[in-house]
Amino acid sequence: MSVEFRVEAQAGAARGGCLLTPHGQIETPVFMPVGTAGTVKAVPQDVLEELGVQILLGNTYHLYLRPGVETVRNFGGLHRFMAWPRAILTDSGGFQVFSLNELRKLTEEGVTFRSHLDGSSHFFSPENSMAVQIGLGADIIMAFDECTEYPADRARTQASMELTLRWAERSKKYFEEHKHEVPWEISGQWPVASDPQTGIPRFALNDRLEEGATQSLFGIIQGGMDLALRKESAERTIEIGFPGYAIGGLSVGEPRERTREVVEATLEHLPKDKPRYLMGVGAPEEIVEYSRLGVDMMDCVLPTRAARHGLLFTSEGKISIKQARYARDAGPLDPNCGCCVCQRYSRAYLRHLYASNEVLAQVLNTLHNLSFYLDTMRRVRHSIRLGEEFRFL
Amino acid sequence: MSVEFRVEAQAGAARGGCLLTPHGQIETPVFMPVGTAGTVKAVPQDVLEELGVQILLGNTYHLYLRPGVETVRNFGGLHRFMAWPRAILTDSGGFQVFSLNELRKLTEEGVTFRSHLDGSSHFFSPENSMAVQIGLGADIIMAFDECTEYPADRARTQASMELTLRWAERSKKYFEEHKHEVPWEISGQWPVASDPQTGIPRFALNDRLEEGATQSLFGIIQGGMDLALRKESAERTIEIGFPGYAIGGLSVGEPRERTREVVEATLEHLPKDKPRYLMGVGAPEEIVEYSRLGVDMMDCVLPTRAARHGLLFTSEGKISIKQARYARDAGPLDPNCGCCVCQRYSRAYLRHLYASNEVLAQVLNTLHNLSFYLDTMRRVRHSIRLGEEFRFL
Repeated sequence: MSVEFRVEAQAGAARGGCLLTPHGQIETPVFMPVGTAGTVKAVPQDVLEELGVQILLGNTYHLYLRPGVETVRNFGGLHRFMAWPRAILTDSGGFQVFSLNELRKLTEEGVTFRSHLDGSSHFFSPENSMAVQIGLGADIIMAFDECTEYPADRARTQASMELTLRWAERSKKYFEEHKHEVPWEISGQWPVASDPQTGIPRFALNDRLEEGATQSLFGIIQGGMDLALRKESAERTIEIGFPGYAIGGLSVGEPRERTREVVEATLEHLPKDKPRYLMGVGAPEEIVEYSRLGVDMMDCVLPTRAARHGLLFTSEGKISIKQARYARDAGPLDPNCGCCVCQRYSRAYLRHLYASNEVLAQVLNTLHNLSFYLDTMRRVRHSIRLGEEFRFL
Repeated sequence: MSVEFRVEAQAGAARGGCLLTPHGQIETPVFMPVGTAGTVKAVPQDVLEELGVQILLGNTYHLYLRPGVETVRNFGGLHRFMAWPRAILTDSGGFQVFSLNELRKLTEEGVTFRSHLDGSSHFFSPENSMAVQIGLGADIIMAFDECTEYPADRARTQASMELTLRWAERSKKYFEEHKHEVPWEISGQWPVASDPQTGIPRFALNDRLEEGATQSLFGIIQGGMDLALRKESAERTIEIGFPGYAIGGLSVGEPRERTREVVEATLEHLPKDKPRYLMGVGAPEEIVEYSRLGVDMMDCVLPTRAARHGLLFTSEGKISIKQARYARDAGPLDPNCGCCVCQRYSRAYLRHLYASNEVLAQVLNTLHNLSFYLDTMRRVRHSIRLGEEFRFL
């Protein structure tokens, strides 16, 4: 068993589904918080569980550089390394590597790049992105693609799409030949401790994988802003065959209306019985809108990154908590939010923490924004189950 | 009612007591985590409650500068501002101001100093330290003293002690005349929110103060390293009369053996029926040792500050988690610790977080160190109740 996907309800084009992974079941549409280097910045794992996070995204580029794939593999994979019992998805590393600009060099074979940490030289190809992602052991891993820059002309977009297709074939081939190497079977290091008196394991995460459980490799649709190329990319990626399909190459600087158009057009060409993952979006109103269009999975650094900059999402709009107007505001951040931050602390206190550069500002702000995103998706799923129309707020 | 103290058990010179404050009961001997600017750095208040923190220390100097006493007073005091329902103690601001060195000027009247934040000029005297501390509304507040530097000759030490005694009288006089101004009675801003549907308060911290509850002002013994001056300082401070007595001016650079000697000698002259607070100590073995000598209250930045620098206290000694030797160590930080960090995460993961400069490193490290300190004190109290001898580990 790798992943299984069932669509259980529909409301217009929106789908309410269930994605079964080796590390648990995910209700879709789902928002995946980003845990770049094996941590959703500032939030302990037990709090993520309480928030109802069903699946996390890890960044292959960052984890490959630090702590390194061998360290994670020796632990039996990222779940055990970061003590996270639920599902994980890793990206291919491609997007980060292509973001390095000056530090990379592209060939048919792959990409040579320099670490942003120490300038050391490294090489990612479809094959070794797969090798790294197998070592990290996420439930869902992504084909190594080229994220086409924006803007790009038709010839450039087509060449980039063709490269992504060739890399998709190589990714799949390597994955199929090596997927049995996932380190999940390693035992003896988990639980991390036994009670010294009784010998009873003190750390009992639910890590009982079914016999023969494997990772799943998703394909990625490219094609820039060209709807015909998007169609072609979708059809040829489907021909290669994957258990799920992602839409990549969006939110790269194009107008939001264009993003929506490309998403809608691309979704038309994706199989209805497979999960559809829109990469790297978005704002709260966008994740609602894309759910409405039939997207099943999304991820974005926005809620966590914005939180660290004091930008908070609420039912009454965005709040920049650093503003002096909140210095004596005794009200909760969001009067309609049930999260533990809004239940306990005032805007004035959150503003004080931020103005004083206190670590707790990052903790509480991140907690609220994640809670806001997860609550938003819960409402979306609820509406779909009821067959209702829905929109943001 | 201000504070009430009962000694309920003894083991040698050690005392097991109960300190009743307007914001709850404290079992002594107690370690008070430092929450400098209205936050124990990196730890949310609900986690502090779970850890069993009974009383926090707030720094008057920091809170006076930011968010400012008027903001806190408008909230009804620091408890409500920081959403902390249990007891709080504030220092007088003197120690921080005297630590500013170049930025201060001392007269009989008080101290002029410059803010470390923006260079603005401020003045603290016994009277306005009391005014600020009344505005902050901690359960226990401290007389404004001069912390004698180390080393200091006898004449300097005596002059400093005499100044502290005059300031103690002025502190008490101002406090007695103004203690009814504590902002605890202000209502209407707490709870911070009501359920918009039902109007039911969503934030029900236990904040029901008894009629006529007031703060308590503790006196501070100085006298440097001179045992005769310590005796004189104790006797004359007791003559002024306070509901509790602190030993100040230690842990200022003197050898640890000297600290112990001065503490032991000073304790002899303090009343047995009043709480005794040793300011600014210490390492885990010290808080155990001073409990053994009969100290009832202690505070120190060590567990929290060390944690942020990756220095962790364990039952097997100190660990510097940044060391490469932990990079693949799957064991818990402390196999004998029941805290949520040791129960869930490995040394390798904690090392990775620290090496990657992740905020979660600060959160988890602080959580463990505080847990270690609080557990240590729980064991001390348990031993005293059983009338047992005790020592560190």
